[in-house]
Parts: sequence; C-alpha cells; structure tokens
Amino acid sequence: MKKLPLLLMGCGGVGRLLLHHIVSCRPLHSKQGLRLRVVGVCDSSSLVVTSDVFSEELDDDFLMEVCRVKSNGSSLLTLNNFGACQVVSSQEVIKIATDIAALLGKSTGLAFVDCSASSETVGMLNQVVGLGCCVVLANKKPLTASLELYDQLVSQPRRIRHESTVGAGLPVVASLNRMVSCGDPIYRIIGSLSGTLGYVMSELENGKPFSQDVNAAKSLGYTEPDPRDDLGGMDVARKALILARLLGHRLNLENIKVESLYPVEMGPNMMPVEDFLVNGLPLLDKGIQDRIMKASSNGNVLRYVCLIGNNGCEVGIQELAKDSPLGRLRGSDNLLEIYSRCYSEQPLVIQGAGAGNDTTAAGVLADILDIQDLFP
Amino acid sequence: MKKLPLLLMGCGGVGRLLLHHIVSCRPLHSKQGLRLRVVGVCDSSSLVVTSDVFSEELDDDFLMEVCRVKSNGSSLLTLNNFGACQVVSSQEVIKIATDIAALLGKSTGLAFVDCSASSETVGMLNQVVGLGCCVVLANKKPLTASLELYDQLVSQPRRIRHESTVGAGLPVVASLNRMVSCGDPIYRIIGSLSGTLGYVMSELENGKPFSQDVNAAKSLGYTEPDPRDDLGGMDVARKALILARLLGHRLNLENIKVESLYPVEMGPNMMPVEDFLVNGLPLLDKGIQDRIMKASSNGNVLRYVCLIGNNGCEVGIQELAKDSPLGRLRGSDNLLEIYSRCYSEQPLVIQGAGAGNDTTAAGVLADILDIQDLFP
Repeated sequence: MKKLPLLLMGCGGVGRLLLHHIVSCRPLHSKQGLRLRVVGVCDSSSLVVTSDVFSEELDDDFLMEVCRVKSNGSSLLTLNNFGACQVVSSQEVIKIATDIAALLGKSTGLAFVDCSASSETVGMLNQVVGLGCCVVLANKKPLTASLELYDQLVSQPRRIRHESTVGAGLPVVASLNRMVSCGDPIYRIIGSLSGTLGYVMSELENGKPFSQDVNAAKSLGYTEPDPRDDLGGMDVARKALILARLLGHRLNLENIKVESLYPVEMGPNMMPVEDFLVNGLPLLDKGIQDRIMKASSNGNVLRYVCLIGNNGCEVGIQELAKDSPLGRLRGSDNLLEIYSRCYSEQPLVIQGAGAGNDTTAAGVLADILDIQDLFP
Repeated sequence: MKKLPLLLMGCGGVGRLLLHHIVSCRPLHSKQGLRLRVVGVCDSSSLVVTSDVFSEELDDDFLMEVCRVKSNGSSLLTLNNFGACQVVSSQEVIKIATDIAALLGKSTGLAFVDCSASSETVGMLNQVVGLGCCVVLANKKPLTASLELYDQLVSQPRRIRHESTVGAGLPVVASLNRMVSCGDPIYRIIGSLSGTLGYVMSELENGKPFSQDVNAAKSLGYTEPDPRDDLGGMDVARKALILARLLGHRLNLENIKVESLYPVEMGPNMMPVEDFLVNGLPLLDKGIQDRIMKASSNGNVLRYVCLIGNNGCEVGIQELAKDSPLGRLRGSDNLLEIYSRCYSEQPLVIQGAGAGNDTTAAGVLADILDIQDLFP
C-alpha cells in the first residue's frame, strides 16, 4: 500500500469537502493500492497534527469531527477530543509545519494542500517546496504574488499542482500544461472565468437592464455578498494571471489591464453596498445598453473575458462573434477558447461549472492523486 | 538529466510527427532536465535498435532520416546507413523487443509507444507491461481487444496512457481519468467523436441532401478513401468502447449497438466504392431527410454520437436539443458532454479538432511526458 502523507491548510468549504471526499474515496483508493494519510489540518487559529507524523494519521472519525466543527464556523480549538494529537497555536504553525516538512519531505514525501484563501501561506509554501515537499493549491493568492515568489513556488514544476485555482475542477490547468510540455505553443486564450459575470453578460441579451441582472444574480447566490467584488474584475484578473504565467508570460497582477464594471466613485469605500445596489447600479444601465446595441448592430455580443495573447493580458468586456463558442455561452458556466498550433483555426474549448465547493475539492483531490508517482 | 528511454512502434504519419516533435522539443525538455532517448523504431518490416540500449540512443540525424524514408512510404530497410544499429527482421521483432523490455523495464524504465494501426501489438504490449515497462498508445486496437487482454494491458494503470486514441490530442482521457480517480462518478457521456460524421450531420441542417454532404466531406479530405469506413460507425464504436471501459463498464466491441448509415446490401463486399458514391448514397437521402424533418418539428437536430450510460453503450443517430452543446456544434470538431455528480445539470464540455496527425502526435508526446515521474 503506497502512502501519501498530506497536511491540509484551510478547513473552509473546500477543505471540508476535500476531507469528506478523501474519506468517501477510501475503498476506491484502497483498490488502487493507495492511502491518503492526513497528518495535520490547520485553520487560521491553529494546527492539529498527529503525534508521530511518520507512522500515524488523523483517523477518519477525527476528520469528520473536524468537518462538523468547521461547518459550524467554529475554530479547530473547539474540538472536544484531540486524543494524542499535538495542537499548535497560530504563532507556531509555520515553525512546526516546516519542521514536519523537513522530516517527511525527502523521506516519505509530504503534500501541502492549501485550501485557504490566505495571502500569508506563500512564504511557508516556498520553504516546504525547498524541503522536497509537493504543493497542491486551491488558493489563488500564492500564485499571484510577486514574480520572485512565484518563481520559487514553481521551481519544481512536477511537485506543484493547482487545477482548482482556475475554473474550479474544470481540466484547464492540466490541459494547458499538457500542451505547453509537448511544444504546442499557445498564442491566445480568451475565456469567461467568472460565473457571475458570465451570467450577467448573457442575461443582458434578453433585454433586461444591467442593474436588474446583477440583482438577479445576487438573489440566485451567484455573487459575493458585495457584488462589487465580482464586478471589479480582480478575481478574473488573478485567474488570468495564473494562466498567463503558465504560458510563460512574465507578468505581475499590476501589469494586467482590468476593466471594472463600476466607477471609482461607486467603490466600497465611497458607497455602502445597499446604496450601490439600489441607487448606484441603475446609473450604469444606459452605458451598458448603448454598448450592447452597438455590438448587436455588428452582429456581435458582449462578454466579460480574460484575453491572454502575445501582447500581454487584459480583463474586461469584449465584443465577440455571436456564433463563437463564447458568443453562444449562456448562464453561469465558465468557458475557455484556447488557440495553438494544433488548434489554430478552431480553438480547443473547455466549458463547465467553474465554481462550487464540491467541484473545487474534486479538482484538488485529482491533483493530489496526480502526484502520487513522486512518492516512494 | 533524467532520461526516458522509448521504443516507437509505427512510423506512419503520427509516428513520424512524434519523432519530429521529440527532436524539436529538445531545448524545451532540456530546460526541464529531461531527455527523451529513442532506443528503437519499428515499422511492419523491421525494428532498428541502438547497439547498446543502456547507454546509446538513435541520434537526431538518424531519426530525421527515418522520417524522410517513411514519408516516402518506404520501409525502414531502405535506410542508407544504420551505423552501429541492430536491424531486426519482422519475425524476430517480438523476441528482441521483449528482451530489451526485460533489460530496461525495471532498471532505467522503458516506454513502448504504439503509433501503429495494428491489432497485432497487444500481445507484445501485455508482455512488456508485465516486465515493468510503460505503454503509450495512439493505436486503438490494443484497447478494444477482448476484456481479458484489456485487463492485462491496464493492470498497471499508472503505467499506461492513451489520450490520442479518442479525439486525437483533445484532453478527454486525461480529464475522465481525473474525474474517476477523485470519486466524481460519471453517469453519462454523449459525444460526437467522428469529424466526418459531425460535418455530415451538421451540414444536413443546411438542407443539402445526405449524398451531397458525404461527397463534399470526401472532397474536403474528411473521409477515409472509402467513406463507408466512416459511415459504418465502427471507428466511433472503438472510441466509445475505450471511454466506456475507462468508466468501468465491462463491455466488448460486440456489446455495443452500432447504427450503420448504409444498409448491408451497399456494403464494401457488395458494391465498389464508386458505385456506392454515385448510385448507392442517393437512395439513402429520403430516409435521412424524413428523420431530420421529424427532429426539426420537435425543435431538435440529429447528431451521430456515442452514448455511454448506466445501461451500456450505443453508437448512432440521436435526436438532440438544438441549444445543447452538441446541438450547437457545427463542422468537423469533436465534442463531448460529460455528466457527473460535479457536472450534473450542465455538463463538462470538451470541444476541438479530433483528428490530424500533428494533434495526435502532440497528445502522444504529452502522455510520454506525463509518465516521467515513473522513471528513475
């Protein structure tokens, strides 16, 4: 039985579902001669780690108890019974985690799985990569830090996987990596990477005003609590940066031209969210409607996309042919058109749900299984 | 520098392009600390193998000479200068190849790359899998042999890759493997896996008769020399069987219900191809047109697809919603809709060119790179 030791950072929605999937896949993985051995879990308050990381693991009952506690929004510290586990307070997490990485990295192997949304993990991840560990990310932040930190993080490219950072579990990163590795140069990616903005842009075609579409998206639960977090485009920009860097573009987040769908004077520091929804948004309807009419008179539609080409990377509204894959897109699916030598006239298209904790966690688990050959 | 020894079977269009890609990717792979070391190449007449498989490789000049000779349709035996290579006649190929597999399989590792179209390779492939080798296939035949042979071939699932057997280089097999491994059960695949039939079925919507569409596809070079090889559906059935087996269905080729688009009395044994094209095909126009009218009156279109579900696998014409991904498909692209727990209402969709030697060879190369962690 091959063993894959894991340390999980972040037990929010994605992290919890990952633990669930790991436990429910035990019979499947056992048939494949594989055991995912969770040696530690970590939230923002503390790290809980098994007393002997070489031979012991957090058992499945304990992992399910972690899920229960975290689904209540409580901290790991409220767990009732830590058994023989070591509980490390947040100040010591980095030291203890890197100690474990140093012990296991080059012996049994160890995968650090980052399902947090923290920008603080990148330093630790870079340390553990240097200690021979693997890294699997659902967290976009470490990959969108400075180029210097990025280069360290991906210095062992076989030891890092991050499918779920773009399009949740959609096989985007894996597919791009395949193309890059076999020398099929990708010269253009254009993609709708926000379910929220995809929904809003395609609903506009039904003639409803922008403000109404955004409010509808909010009631459907598609948006962040403050829809400006979606409308500003920064989440799309992060995903675009991750893809652009995969293709070898030497960019930082600030090099990406990002179009915000609301003006500065309606920003979160200027206007409460309720005020924005009721009074701000309707002021934007006319401008957007004019752009739609203009696009429509050219036989085109508007989509909020990332565009990665030889001239760099930008994020915003583009006018696209009605009968292109992106032009035909409806609803909240993500969709990428990828153009390369092999897909020069007609793109490679990948489409599907690009959000959701279940899909995201499934992508993380597939990544973990993908690195199994690196473990002894 | 990590070395991946390869033995290539089949130097037709795909095999030749693979050698080209291997040579042109040298700088890229060198940067990744990787060297693809071709120790032997094989066509139907002979195997040419380096004199010392442990330390030597066929050099790039020699590989390019192989490409030149094979692109003229000549046999490997017509090569001018074999240098220190060993040339093995077809009778001895299996013995010598398995000897090499026994030498390298468990020491340096060895990948057998089958780019032939032969049904004869499966026995040898099963032997070398048993000897610790990896197998990469563009050849569908070994994967569509009996279940007994299939089970042997995939007995070491990490050591076999075969992306290019379905949809050329489209990331279909890799994506399905990811989903299966992470316990996201796939309950339905519906896909257009023949560029020829995809083109014909979507052209029918423009009101042209079936016979005219098939002849147009033939002049565009989309069909086999005898279009009945496409219209019979057996090539789609083989691809469907490969996907169905990936999902765990215990099926053989004869368990798949296949709809042929021409009747038995117009088969290759009953009617020469010219006769079929001129006199046979037009007799089929009315029947197909009636079906299109009926589908159209339901707001649907016809597509020639494979359908893999819990009740088995079938291949033939299906009536599909106009506004589904397959219903919106035009031209010769392949397209798969994949339904699973994570993609339950809206499918995961993968679309793109599903044929072409360049794309197929790129898929094979990506597979080879994907197994690099299995080599010491």
